[in-house]
Amino acid sequence: MAAGSTLGRWIVRSGVLPLSRRPPAWGRAARQPPGLPLAPARAFSNNKILVELDESSGVATMKFKSPPVNSLSLDFLTEFCISLEKLENNRACRGVIFTSAIPKIFSSGLDITEMCGKSTEHYAEFWRAVQEMWLRLYGCNMVTIAAVNGSSPAGGCLIALSCDYRIMVDNPKFNIGLNEAQLGIVAPFWFKDTFVNVVGQRIAERSLQLGALHPAPEALKLGLVDELVPEEKLQEKAAAVMAQWLALPDHARQITKSMMRKTVLDRLISHREEDIQHFISFTSKESIQKSLRMYMEMLRKKKSG
Amino acid sequence: MAAGSTLGRWIVRSGVLPLSRRPPAWGRAARQPPGLPLAPARAFSNNKILVELDESSGVATMKFKSPPVNSLSLDFLTEFCISLEKLENNRACRGVIFTSAIPKIFSSGLDITEMCGKSTEHYAEFWRAVQEMWLRLYGCNMVTIAAVNGSSPAGGCLIALSCDYRIMVDNPKFNIGLNEAQLGIVAPFWFKDTFVNVVGQRIAERSLQLGALHPAPEALKLGLVDELVPEEKLQEKAAAVMAQWLALPDHARQITKSMMRKTVLDRLISHREEDIQHFISFTSKESIQKSLRMYMEMLRKKKSG
Amino acid sequence: MAAGSTLGRWIVRSGVLPLSRRPPAWGRAARQPPGLPLAPARAFSNNKILVELDESSGVATMKFKSPPVNSLSLDFLTEFCISLEKLENNRACRGVIFTSAIPKIFSSGLDITEMCGKSTEHYAEFWRAVQEMWLRLYGCNMVTIAAVNGSSPAGGCLIALSCDYRIMVDNPKFNIGLNEAQLGIVAPFWFKDTFVNVVGQRIAERSLQLGALHPAPEALKLGLVDELVPEEKLQEKAAAVMAQWLALPDHARQITKSMMRKTVLDRLISHREEDIQHFISFTSKESIQKSLRMYMEMLRKKKSG
Repeated sequence: MAAGSTLGRWIVRSGVLPLSRRPPAWGRAARQPPGLPLAPARAFSNNKILVELDESSGVATMKFKSPPVNSLSLDFLTEFCISLEKLENNRACRGVIFTSAIPKIFSSGLDITEMCGKSTEHYAEFWRAVQEMWLRLYGCNMVTIAAVNGSSPAGGCLIALSCDYRIMVDNPKFNIGLNEAQLGIVAPFWFKDTFVNVVGQRIAERSLQLGALHPAPEALKLGLVDELVPEEKLQEKAAAVMAQWLALPDHARQITKSMMRKTVLDRLISHREEDIQHFISFTSKESIQKSLRMYMEMLRKKKSG
Repeated sequence: MAAGSTLGRWIVRSGVLPLSRRPPAWGRAARQPPGLPLAPARAFSNNKILVELDESSGVATMKFKSPPVNSLSLDFLTEFCISLEKLENNRACRGVIFTSAIPKIFSSGLDITEMCGKSTEHYAEFWRAVQEMWLRLYGCNMVTIAAVNGSSPAGGCLIALSCDYRIMVDNPKFNIGLNEAQLGIVAPFWFKDTFVNVVGQRIAERSLQLGALHPAPEALKLGLVDELVPEEKLQEKAAAVMAQWLALPDHARQITKSMMRKTVLDRLISHREEDIQHFISFTSKESIQKSLRMYMEMLRKKKSG
Repeated sequence: MAAGSTLGRWIVRSGVLPLSRRPPAWGRAARQPPGLPLAPARAFSNNKILVELDESSGVATMKFKSPPVNSLSLDFLTEFCISLEKLENNRACRGVIFTSAIPKIFSSGLDITEMCGKSTEHYAEFWRAVQEMWLRLYGCNMVTIAAVNGSSPAGGCLIALSCDYRIMVDNPKFNIGLNEAQLGIVAPFWFKDTFVNVVGQRIAERSLQLGALHPAPEALKLGLVDELVPEEKLQEKAAAVMAQWLALPDHARQITKSMMRKTVLDRLISHREEDIQHFISFTSKESIQKSLRMYMEMLRKKKSG
C-alpha cells in the first residue's frame, strides 16, 4: 500500500485532474436518456434565440435576439426551454453561455403583454412557462454562464442569478436587480430564494425591498455578479471561465450542484400549483390590470410620438 | 400591443416610480383597520419615549429618553409597543426613525432590576414584553431606521438589528453587539436569528460566542450597521435614507419584508410560551440571582462613592 | 434599586468579565460526567498525534505527526477521537489547538488505502470513524483553534472548518479547500453544511463545484480562514486568540456554540446510517475501485522511480 496516499494529496500533486485521465463512465452518467430522437445539433434557431454549439469544446451559446428588449414572452420562454432541453440531451454539449444579441439589454424580464387583458388560462400557461424556465435553468446539469452584456432587470436578472457564474460588461449604465417592488409587485418566493443564495439574506432584504437596480460596479461589490470585463473581452472571458469549469468531471460537479440547489428547487416544485393560482389571482385584479394598461398606453404614445 | 413592454423596462426607463403615479389602492392596503379610535397624532409622549410625527413626510421619530442609559424596563417596553402600535394605526405615518435623547447611549439593553428579586409572574410579564417589542418591530409594516447615536449593547443592539436600516455615529467609542455571553448568559434564539439575518452565520457564530461589542468602524466592516456618519449629520442622513425607502409603494415593500422575515418571526411565535418558561427558570436560579445582586450592589457603591 | 443597571452596561463598564468574578458553577457545568477513570493528563501520545496540555492555561495542543502527509486513516481517526474525549473529560482543559508536526502539510485528508480493496465492514467502520471525528470536533465544548501550518485539502480542510477559529500560515504555497469534485467524487452533505456555515452559500456553491484549493491569501479573502500570520508567529498567535476566547465564561459560550451548530450536527446524527450506506455503495463500485487502484499504482511508481 502506498503510505500517505490521500484523496487530497492526489490533487495537490496533480493539479486539476486532466480530462484524459477521467474514467469515461463519470463524464455523462447523470444525463437522462434522450427519449425523443435528437435533432442534428450544431446550430438550431427559431425566432427568438440563436443557439450555436461548438462540438470541439462542448460549449453552446444561447443568444437572445428578441427585439426590442428580449422580453420573456410565452414564445420566448417556450423556445428557451426547448433549446435548453435539446442541449441537455445532446451528449456533445457540456456547457452553455447565455448572452444577448441586442445592444445594451440582456433581457428586460417578463413580457407585460402576456399579463394584460388575457384569459385565466393564458395567465396560468404563461406562469407555468416562467416556472419551467427557472426549474430547467437553476437545475441544469450543464455548466451555465451568464455573459451579461446589457441591463438585466427582474426576470432578466433571474436568468443571470440561475447560472453557475455571472460575468457582466463593465459599464455603469448597465444595471441588474430584482426591481419588482418598484412596480408595486412582489418578486415570487423562488426569485427571492435564488437571490438570497447568491448575495445572502441581508443584501437581499434591502435590495428586494427597494426594488434596486444595481449598476455593474455595485453589482460586483454586492456579489450579484462574479466579475466585470470590458465589452470586447466578454465572450473570450466567458469561454475561459467555461473551460475552467469543464476541466472538472461532469458527474461529481452535477451532484454537487444539485446538493447545493435542491432545497430551493424543491420548494417551488412542491408549491407549483399554489404559485400559479397566486399569480392568476394577483394578475386578474382590476387594479393591476388598469395599471398595466396605463403603462402600455404610455409606451405606445412614446413610440408614436 | 406595445412590443417590448416588460416589467423591467418600465423601471429602467422611468427610474423610481414617482409617488404621484402610484395607484392609491396600493399605498396602504396592508394596514389593519385601526380598530380603536385614534389619538390626535402629531406628538404624544409619556415618560420614556418622545414621539414626533412629521405629517408632511409621513415620518415619525421615536426618541429614547429614559436616563441614565435607556434601559429596557417593563415600563419602557410597554411604552415602546404602544407608541409603535399608534404609529402603525395612523395612516399619516409610513416610517419611523429610532434614536436616543441620551448622550453616548442608544440603549443599554434589558433592565436588570426587572430580573432580580421579583416574582415568577413578574419575570413572565417582563419577558413577554421583550418578545412583544421584537415581534412588533421586526415585523413592522412601516419603514424602520435605527439612527444609532451611542453605544448599543445586548437588547439595544437587538432594536437596531430589527430595523430595516442602521446608521451609526462614526465614533469608535460607541460600540454595538450582542454581548450576553460575557455575562455568562446566552442570547435567546430569536436574538441570534435576527443577528444571523444581518451578518450571516460565520460572523454571528464568532461574535456571539465572544459576546463581542464592536466599535462603530468594526460594526460597519462586519455589516452590523449599514453606514457611519458624523454625529451632526445623523438625523439628516436618516431622513434622506427614509425618503429613499418611502419612494417605494408601501404594499409591495411590506409583503417583500414579510417574505424575508417570516421564517424567523414564526419561530418565536410558535415557541413563545416555551421561551418564557425558559427565561423564568433561568432567571430564578439562585446562582443567577446572586450574581445579579452582586452586580447591582457594586453599581450602588460606585454611585454613592 | 440601581437605576440604569442593565445587562449591557455591566459589560460596557467592566470590559470583559474577569475570570475571578465568574461564579464557579458556570465554568464547567456543561461537561458530561467523566464516566471512565481518567488517564493522568499532561501529555499522552500514541502513534499519530502528540497531545500536550498546559494545565496553567488550560490549553492543549494536538499535533498531527503521521508521516508523510497526516492522512486520516482509521488509526489516526480513532486516536483523534480518543484524544479529544480525554481532553473533554479533563477538567483542567478548556481549549485545544490543532496543528501539524509535519512540514508543509496540515492534513491531506482521508486515507485512500482505507477505501481500496477492503471489505464492506471495513468501509463502514472507516466511515463511521470519519463521522465520529467530525461530530466530536464540530460539537466540541472546548474552544477549538486550527493553526494551519501547511496545505489542508479535503478532510484536512474539514478539520479546520470545524474549529471555532482558523489561523493559517501566510504562505501562498499552502492551500485549503474541499477539492473532492476534482477527483470525481462528491463532498458529503455534512462537509458541505460545515463549509456553508463558514463561507456562505454562494462561495460554497462555486468552490465545491470547482473542487477548488485556495492559496492562503485567497482563503483569507473568502473567509475560509480568519487570519494569516508568518509561520514563526503561528503558535504565539494561536495562544493569544485562545486566551481571548477563554476569557469568556465556558458555560454561556458552550450553549451559544451549540445553538449555532445544532441544526447542522442534527442533520448528520439523524441520517448517520444512511450516510454510511451511501459511502459503502459508492466506494464498492468497480469503477471507483479501479480508479483508486490506478492512482495508488501511480504513487508507488513515483516513489520507487
